[in-house]
Amino acid sequence: MTRFQELSREFSAYFNQKHFPDQPASLYDAASYMLEDGGKRVRPVLCLLGNELFEPIREDSWKIATALELFHNFTLIHDDIMDKAPLRRGKPTTHAKYNESTALLAGDVMLVKAYEYLNETDPIYSRALIRLFNETGREVCEGQQLDMDYEKKAFISLERYMQMIELKTAVLLAGSLQMGAIVAGAGETDQQHIYDFGKNLGLAFQVQDDWLDSFGNPSTFGKLKGGDILANKKTFLLLYALENGRAVEKKVILELMQSSEPEKVNRMIEIFLNSGVDLAAQMAKRAYMEKALSHLESISVPDQKKEPLRELSEYLLEREI
Amino acid sequence: MTRFQELSREFSAYFNQKHFPDQPASLYDAASYMLEDGGKRVRPVLCLLGNELFEPIREDSWKIATALELFHNFTLIHDDIMDKAPLRRGKPTTHAKYNESTALLAGDVMLVKAYEYLNETDPIYSRALIRLFNETGREVCEGQQLDMDYEKKAFISLERYMQMIELKTAVLLAGSLQMGAIVAGAGETDQQHIYDFGKNLGLAFQVQDDWLDSFGNPSTFGKLKGGDILANKKTFLLLYALENGRAVEKKVILELMQSSEPEKVNRMIEIFLNSGVDLAAQMAKRAYMEKALSHLESISVPDQKKEPLRELSEYLLEREI
Repeated sequence: MTRFQELSREFSAYFNQKHFPDQPASLYDAASYMLEDGGKRVRPVLCLLGNELFEPIREDSWKIATALELFHNFTLIHDDIMDKAPLRRGKPTTHAKYNESTALLAGDVMLVKAYEYLNETDPIYSRALIRLFNETGREVCEGQQLDMDYEKKAFISLERYMQMIELKTAVLLAGSLQMGAIVAGAGETDQQHIYDFGKNLGLAFQVQDDWLDSFGNPSTFGKLKGGDILANKKTFLLLYALENGRAVEKKVILELMQSSEPEKVNRMIEIFLNSGVDLAAQMAKRAYMEKALSHLESISVPDQKKEPLRELSEYLLEREI
Repeated sequence: MTRFQELSREFSAYFNQKHFPDQPASLYDAASYMLEDGGKRVRPVLCLLGNELFEPIREDSWKIATALELFHNFTLIHDDIMDKAPLRRGKPTTHAKYNESTALLAGDVMLVKAYEYLNETDPIYSRALIRLFNETGREVCEGQQLDMDYEKKAFISLERYMQMIELKTAVLLAGSLQMGAIVAGAGETDQQHIYDFGKNLGLAFQVQDDWLDSFGNPSTFGKLKGGDILANKKTFLLLYALENGRAVEKKVILELMQSSEPEKVNRMIEIFLNSGVDLAAQMAKRAYMEKALSHLESISVPDQKKEPLRELSEYLLEREI
């Protein structure tokens, strides 16, 4: 088992506690519902690993990890409302199971609860933690807004897409790592390096996620092949093809996006292959990955301490591309 | 001009600044929209008065006042989404002007921004401030949930109604005053008294607001007479009548609630008068008011220092009943 997996298991046990009062049950049942079944708990574990890179994990890092997981779930509940998503991880979303108003409030109260955990950490660093948490929170909201804005546009540049991904998902991974480093008393330069490691890891992960939709093995990936294509979702692949493909390919892509023919997914994947998108995604992912690892390299701790974070990068990123 | 009015004017000038970055404008225009035209700014001014009761107003109180006003507006934006309200203060609500998703996110980012202001106050008391702010925030969410739950019920007791009002509106007034007192370094007993002063003031204010709907002068009150009655809103008046009225009155009330006859408002008001609701509301308001003032009395500062808060109580509460 990797250190990531160990900590993921330990954190899940720690997190499996009562975070809210009993009453009003109509509010707190809805808030707890989302937390029950939890995914990989990536953000909290990043915080713990960010601490452990420098020194043994302190009690406070568990509190911060909890705050980060609550924050992440707050964004999921609100995003699901905005996207009108009926399911998440195979279960009805909070607003589908309860109702939109209750889900909205459950998200709000979860964000407040995250601050409660943060505010109980050592005053030596709680201000710095809350400051980073605030900045990250604001950026995640900005990313979600940009995502919605871009959905309505016919085209956006690949550069803007990656900027949106940076805000919507990468900064929270980066911030989680940095918060662990702050608890450990890491210097500013090291903090910046671990942040940039996390940010680039997040960007690499998104490119991979986009790639897997078209080229992954559905049984390993766990999602319907071509789901993004069917939904006309703007992904690295689609935007790269529109930005760099030949005129004739672009024309076919735009036509396919209007259609719902049964061969839509296969035809789109074929164009992606022909226009070099597959290779471009692999290269982009590798570039982000190398950038991430060079920041990890620069952190001033003995090399062997970095093994769990290298291992994590591989675990997250070396599965298929 | 009362001290409240002076500070309300000063705060409005202070608050009239750029709270958010420019981009993405689609998010921050929506967030700023709600803040433009602002009402009486009661909560921030309570914070300033809570500070001034003990010592001259510190710079930090202005930041906290700003956080409180942002928090209040965050709740208004989200409440308006939940209530599907088209208008507030005569203007389209945020979700009506933009859309629900953007309004939801604008609320979220406003709450985060509130924490940014709080987190920049003196570390001597910032932890205590954030702790109180968190607790209050959680309670306000609980109050809103109870309000929605109670809307769906045929009947709730007057006691539960007032508990809901305490959470939904009174604790924020109480917390605003206490936060000012915390900045001033007030002792715990004084902090508790000023909190209880604010809480009871809030409860008195709600009873008055409910009374004004039926018995106020519409031209002074600024709202449509009987608006609560037309909407079958559970108010102090309705619940008191249902709890304490004679069987025959209750029967008519329940019938009237099912009907939309033109005389609905007048007939309901007549029942309120006949069943002693008018007097009961006046007495309840006076009882809350006296409790508030006795807590103000108990605070250990010279009596003349309390004049602005007494004046405020009169300003808020002595207009019609």
